[in-house]
Amino acid sequence: MNGENLDCIGKNITVIGGGVIGASWAVVFLSAGLNVTISDPADGIDEKVKQYVTSALSELSIMGDGLYVSDTLIKKLRFEKNIARAVQYADFIQENGPEKESFKVNLWSEVEKYAPSHTLFLSSSSGITATKQSVSMSRPERLMVGHPFNPPHLMPLVEVVPGEVRDSGLVAQALSFYNALGKAAILINKEIAGFVANRLQAAIFKECIYLVQKGIVKVDELDDIMTSSLGIRWATGGPFLSFHLGGGHDGFLHFLEHLAPEMAVLWEQQEQCDVSFDDETRTMLMRQIDDTYGLHTVEQLEEKRNIKEISVLKSLRQ
Amino acid sequence: MNGENLDCIGKNITVIGGGVIGASWAVVFLSAGLNVTISDPADGIDEKVKQYVTSALSELSIMGDGLYVSDTLIKKLRFEKNIARAVQYADFIQENGPEKESFKVNLWSEVEKYAPSHTLFLSSSSGITATKQSVSMSRPERLMVGHPFNPPHLMPLVEVVPGEVRDSGLVAQALSFYNALGKAAILINKEIAGFVANRLQAAIFKECIYLVQKGIVKVDELDDIMTSSLGIRWATGGPFLSFHLGGGHDGFLHFLEHLAPEMAVLWEQQEQCDVSFDDETRTMLMRQIDDTYGLHTVEQLEEKRNIKEISVLKSLRQ
Repeated sequence: MNGENLDCIGKNITVIGGGVIGASWAVVFLSAGLNVTISDPADGIDEKVKQYVTSALSELSIMGDGLYVSDTLIKKLRFEKNIARAVQYADFIQENGPEKESFKVNLWSEVEKYAPSHTLFLSSSSGITATKQSVSMSRPERLMVGHPFNPPHLMPLVEVVPGEVRDSGLVAQALSFYNALGKAAILINKEIAGFVANRLQAAIFKECIYLVQKGIVKVDELDDIMTSSLGIRWATGGPFLSFHLGGGHDGFLHFLEHLAPEMAVLWEQQEQCDVSFDDETRTMLMRQIDDTYGLHTVEQLEEKRNIKEISVLKSLRQ
Repeated sequence: MNGENLDCIGKNITVIGGGVIGASWAVVFLSAGLNVTISDPADGIDEKVKQYVTSALSELSIMGDGLYVSDTLIKKLRFEKNIARAVQYADFIQENGPEKESFKVNLWSEVEKYAPSHTLFLSSSSGITATKQSVSMSRPERLMVGHPFNPPHLMPLVEVVPGEVRDSGLVAQALSFYNALGKAAILINKEIAGFVANRLQAAIFKECIYLVQKGIVKVDELDDIMTSSLGIRWATGGPFLSFHLGGGHDGFLHFLEHLAPEMAVLWEQQEQCDVSFDDETRTMLMRQIDDTYGLHTVEQLEEKRNIKEISVLKSLRQ
């Protein structure tokens, strides 16, 4: 982590919303030595967040990011339900409230009244753009989407999506702050539904459902195909690099000349594939998910998956 | 590796075609202690294959699959251009010849004349089905596609795709042999263009090109998004497991009720995205690939990528 970039934002972070995304963001900030104020109206939020933070910090320790002494770091975590008091000393705000446009619009016009004038406003929203969230703000360029990949304390990606009114200095500040925290912050140039990662997920998942629907493979086989091929490849290099290398010595040019025509044929077929979440599809998918993953609770499966993700992340750092 | 299953096939493997796929398959078989005969009419094939095998065996050593003494293993590698002599003692044949239907049809009817009656015939073809390749065979059920993910000696996936005439005993034998070699062999139930992994790649790559074309992100940013999010996730769990876990306590049911509707909206938008490999797109992609990856040769980039892949594969075994 780059201490200089961290300093250039300030030491006080306010996390609005203490659900799993907010709590995981708190871990990111705490583990960088920053002060975190959580603002969430829910009863008992303190205990829930502290429990999450303690367990997530031990995951980060496994990852080798220093041995986090939860007790010391948790002293830098406080809770303040009143939004005016929660943001009054904030240098940076990460919002993880309900995915409702009206909620966010009201929130930001309130926050803008009470936060210092230098504070950056970032929303974790996956679907409500900064342009929409900032309609009642007097300086809308202070607000951007900072969409993490779940869970934020493990996954590097943060999609930074400024609104139509933007300030390139503030955009650069948000990117460099996230990067200083060890994240991989990527600027998404234009507001588009789903941003990038969720659009990629949607595109591939349609084909996944199609292949299961047609009886080509079952849900567990499709998942095994992914983890034993494309997943490993894409953990180490993205799709463009992969096809650049798949072309041999001539790289992407070879791909364009020899492999792209076959891909275009697949696209034509895929465009005609009728896939929807109708009742039949839902029932079929639920049954196969249950057959495949039903022996364990979601929490057990998640713990196993996180351990594997930590292991992969660790291996990629070497 | 499961010695019993290996024994049930036999010790003699013939690899037809000694290009990079064939040479990489040779590494898989040699490292399991099997005898490998390479049949390829090209001049100088012996030296090329030996060079590839030596370097790939050292990659496997890094992966911790035992310390491979190339000299000992390479003694089990021989070369035989004459196809009749190359297959006469084969227990298992892995074909990696040119992707031409007529070539493969002729090859297999020749091979069938000279190979022992118990020999299994597997083709690495990514596009020509077993049904098409076997039209001149008297026992077409002996031939299946065994499509690896590149490079076969590192990537676990083998898509096993029997033709329309199939024998479930032989299918099971092929699957268990590949699995005994440490591969992840998955049965693809019906012949479909692109099988599974390449269809998934095609579906996502269309969206990748669309996003770059629209100026949402550049090629390098798209690749970074993949490696810092979905790649890590899919190296550890496939798309179905990922959405099962993404739904929290209620798992996939939560996904269907709360996230699937938004995904269906993205599908509608994506269906209308016009993407093709026209001249403008090719030029734009080549320029960005060059800007991003042009500083290094394909070979240098491939070496780096392989090291990362080995590291990820190693981490997933723990």
